[in-house]
Amino acid sequence: MADKLTARSEDYSKWYNEIVLRAEMASYSPVRGSMVIRPYGYTLWENMQAGLDRRFKATGHQNAYFPLFIPMSFLQKEKEHVAGFAPELAVVTHAGGEQLEEPLVVRPTSETIIGYMYAQWVKSYRDLPILINCWNNVVRWELRTRLFLRTAEFLWQEGHTAHATAEEAEAETRQMLDVYADFAVNDMAIPVIPGRKSESEKFPGAVRSYSIEAMMGDKKALQSGTSHFLGQNFAKAFDIKFLNKANELEFAWTTSWGFSTRMIGGIIMVHGDDQGLKLPPKLAPIQAVVVPIFRNDDEKSKVMPVAESLRQQLIDTIRVKVDDREETPGFKFNDWEMRGVPLRIEVGPKDVDKGTVVLARRDLPGKEGRSFVPQAGLVEAVRSMLTTIQSDMLKCATEFRDANTHEPKSYDEFKTIVEDGFARAWWCGDRQCEAEIKEETKATTRCIPLEQPGGSGVCVHCGKPAQEVAIFAKAY
Amino acid sequence: MADKLTARSEDYSKWYNEIVLRAEMASYSPVRGSMVIRPYGYTLWENMQAGLDRRFKATGHQNAYFPLFIPMSFLQKEKEHVAGFAPELAVVTHAGGEQLEEPLVVRPTSETIIGYMYAQWVKSYRDLPILINCWNNVVRWELRTRLFLRTAEFLWQEGHTAHATAEEAEAETRQMLDVYADFAVNDMAIPVIPGRKSESEKFPGAVRSYSIEAMMGDKKALQSGTSHFLGQNFAKAFDIKFLNKANELEFAWTTSWGFSTRMIGGIIMVHGDDQGLKLPPKLAPIQAVVVPIFRNDDEKSKVMPVAESLRQQLIDTIRVKVDDREETPGFKFNDWEMRGVPLRIEVGPKDVDKGTVVLARRDLPGKEGRSFVPQAGLVEAVRSMLTTIQSDMLKCATEFRDANTHEPKSYDEFKTIVEDGFARAWWCGDRQCEAEIKEETKATTRCIPLEQPGGSGVCVHCGKPAQEVAIFAKAY
Repeated sequence: MADKLTARSEDYSKWYNEIVLRAEMASYSPVRGSMVIRPYGYTLWENMQAGLDRRFKATGHQNAYFPLFIPMSFLQKEKEHVAGFAPELAVVTHAGGEQLEEPLVVRPTSETIIGYMYAQWVKSYRDLPILINCWNNVVRWELRTRLFLRTAEFLWQEGHTAHATAEEAEAETRQMLDVYADFAVNDMAIPVIPGRKSESEKFPGAVRSYSIEAMMGDKKALQSGTSHFLGQNFAKAFDIKFLNKANELEFAWTTSWGFSTRMIGGIIMVHGDDQGLKLPPKLAPIQAVVVPIFRNDDEKSKVMPVAESLRQQLIDTIRVKVDDREETPGFKFNDWEMRGVPLRIEVGPKDVDKGTVVLARRDLPGKEGRSFVPQAGLVEAVRSMLTTIQSDMLKCATEFRDANTHEPKSYDEFKTIVEDGFARAWWCGDRQCEAEIKEETKATTRCIPLEQPGGSGVCVHCGKPAQEVAIFAKAY
Repeated sequence: MADKLTARSEDYSKWYNEIVLRAEMASYSPVRGSMVIRPYGYTLWENMQAGLDRRFKATGHQNAYFPLFIPMSFLQKEKEHVAGFAPELAVVTHAGGEQLEEPLVVRPTSETIIGYMYAQWVKSYRDLPILINCWNNVVRWELRTRLFLRTAEFLWQEGHTAHATAEEAEAETRQMLDVYADFAVNDMAIPVIPGRKSESEKFPGAVRSYSIEAMMGDKKALQSGTSHFLGQNFAKAFDIKFLNKANELEFAWTTSWGFSTRMIGGIIMVHGDDQGLKLPPKLAPIQAVVVPIFRNDDEKSKVMPVAESLRQQLIDTIRVKVDDREETPGFKFNDWEMRGVPLRIEVGPKDVDKGTVVLARRDLPGKEGRSFVPQAGLVEAVRSMLTTIQSDMLKCATEFRDANTHEPKSYDEFKTIVEDGFARAWWCGDRQCEAEIKEETKATTRCIPLEQPGGSGVCVHCGKPAQEVAIFAKAY
């Protein structure tokens, strides 16, 4: 812990890995590509789950659980789906000491098995919509893995809904994209661009995919939640049919949407700095840490009871902890900065005399972020400061994102921009043109933003007429 | 839904399956041995998770996540452990299109991989105790499966702790057994007998296993939560060593404890009756359902707004729903009885005039369970009635359990008792004697209760001296 963290500017990737390990968010595991999510990282995930789950339930969804194992034949029923996932599958061939008749796939996502079940449950329009979400683990065998960002096994939620009409399914798809955007902006303090995925970037088996896209601290993009309108593709593959009001059999319209532990990586990369993690107060496992400051036993016995009484004052309102370790204040300051605790409450012998404390903001270094506050009424002061930190973190991330997003006037300018930021550019929508851009610049279409300038232009690469503007960037 | 449920007395097993399916707790899945937990069943599980998780955190535990896949070689490091689990393993042999160098086991439980990680994390006594719990899915390949009770994949929590001394680990083991007992009694309304498992019934790799045992409605036993003192077995297998205060290297002492979705089956079997499920108010997904009663549109427009205002009155205090379906009251009554909703609130045109409602208890059939209550102050009346239902359900289950637990004077009497209940009998503790009893009666030792009569006796089977009394029963 004594060694200084690698500077973000020096080696972003190394900086990221060091933070994850030193802040005890996750550990490498002995199983290739799988990680261990340690309590501090998992508590952050629990807080993220709570924020999302509340929103899912408020929009009428219920949770359920579907099997981990999926018969291989199920995946093969939707051609694009199996083509997309086949290279990443982990397969159980033996169980209970015997070879299985049909290999079982460890779910990479559950459209197929859920489609099969919905076909059993849906008979008439009265059974629709089905609005189900699942919190579970999935496996996608990856060759190059990164803690949180890309692991063979990850945790996520996958929502799966079935509807009587295309319009209703499309509305659901967009509603859940809004839910993700709302969570990202208001809870994660991460500004996002909601948009449609290009044909080549969409989910295997979807008619239309939407995503929210965020800019990381190294100006690369991270896809941060996706929502898919699946049309009748899975309904046809799995025979999800219902009798409509006119007593005719119709295929249902389905959607799916997901958000994963990958976004823990997003929080680290958007907010972290050379001192370590910087967690948004709404999600931080510890929102404020009380650090008692003393040089000897006399001072300790003067300060500790006050530190504890401050904790008692705050515990019903915020997630607070007293650091009573036998270490120097400097060590403790560094340690909690590394762990990204939004607010430090310092209390020393003089503070005890004066009935004050020092509040030190994680997001504002040095004197600017320090203030003296009376111990009386601390709850209100802390609550209000956490709210300020939350909104300032969003503001800071938004300014950074906007300062690094440019509108190229030419393809040459485009190439320079995507080396170090997002390019917002007119694009023809052609798959071949997109492939060439990727080949030449390593930048991909992140999304075609829902918010468009209107009118039309010419494609930044091929010069053909373009109806829409797309976001291009290098991406995780 | 129109067909009557099979009577519990007629065919208990059929009755059980019908309830699970009709109340939409779970569905059979197309994957052999795996089930689908439907929203109503999953919401019950969420409520159970919340009750347990709160208790885990109150006793200092944090949640974390460990990999689904475990290298086969890890299981082989603890001889009894692998012997116990080998016949039930599901094995991934291929991933990412290639055969794996070392097969990966889908976790049946995580002592091994967690042991490996703890060995990395623990260096000194300052790193102990580690108090971690995991909410996850596990796979144990079973030949004969039953919804919730025995499935190839199930959901559970597994706690894993490491300590500096045997005493502390043993105290943790017993504390978590107490936590399970407290949850079973107070939240599930299921009386349990906490005790020690016999040598032959203990967890593979444990030094001592404890369980809480419950009596189901057919007088068979269901093991309802287990807590294991693992001694230094896994610490030695995985090299979990720490420097103690005297600067000497020692092996740590570990524990594990688990509670699974199996207990949803326990709740069904303890409380259910010929009308269907009967859920304890503390855990019920819907605690009260408002059923508006009307025969025509006039009455409907009179009654519906009141039903909705009752819901509004209650929604901040309890989980409540209005049944606004276009079905007869009789249909609705049966439907909610099937689903085990603890309290029905009926409101018809006359109730609107009089400003009253009828409260009908699920646990008391007929007139005895019905009362007229003023609409004003309904919150208090409902809350207090739910408390009464909760405690009456526990009382009822306890009386049933006690009425069907007997102390045999002879082995002949023992044989009769275990045909139809629990036998509490002196037992020598000998493995061979236990095997003979099982062979002859199909009854097994459920546990050696922590609460012992004191003194000594003679073994109910072999007549040798016995120091302890054990509970014998047929079990799930």
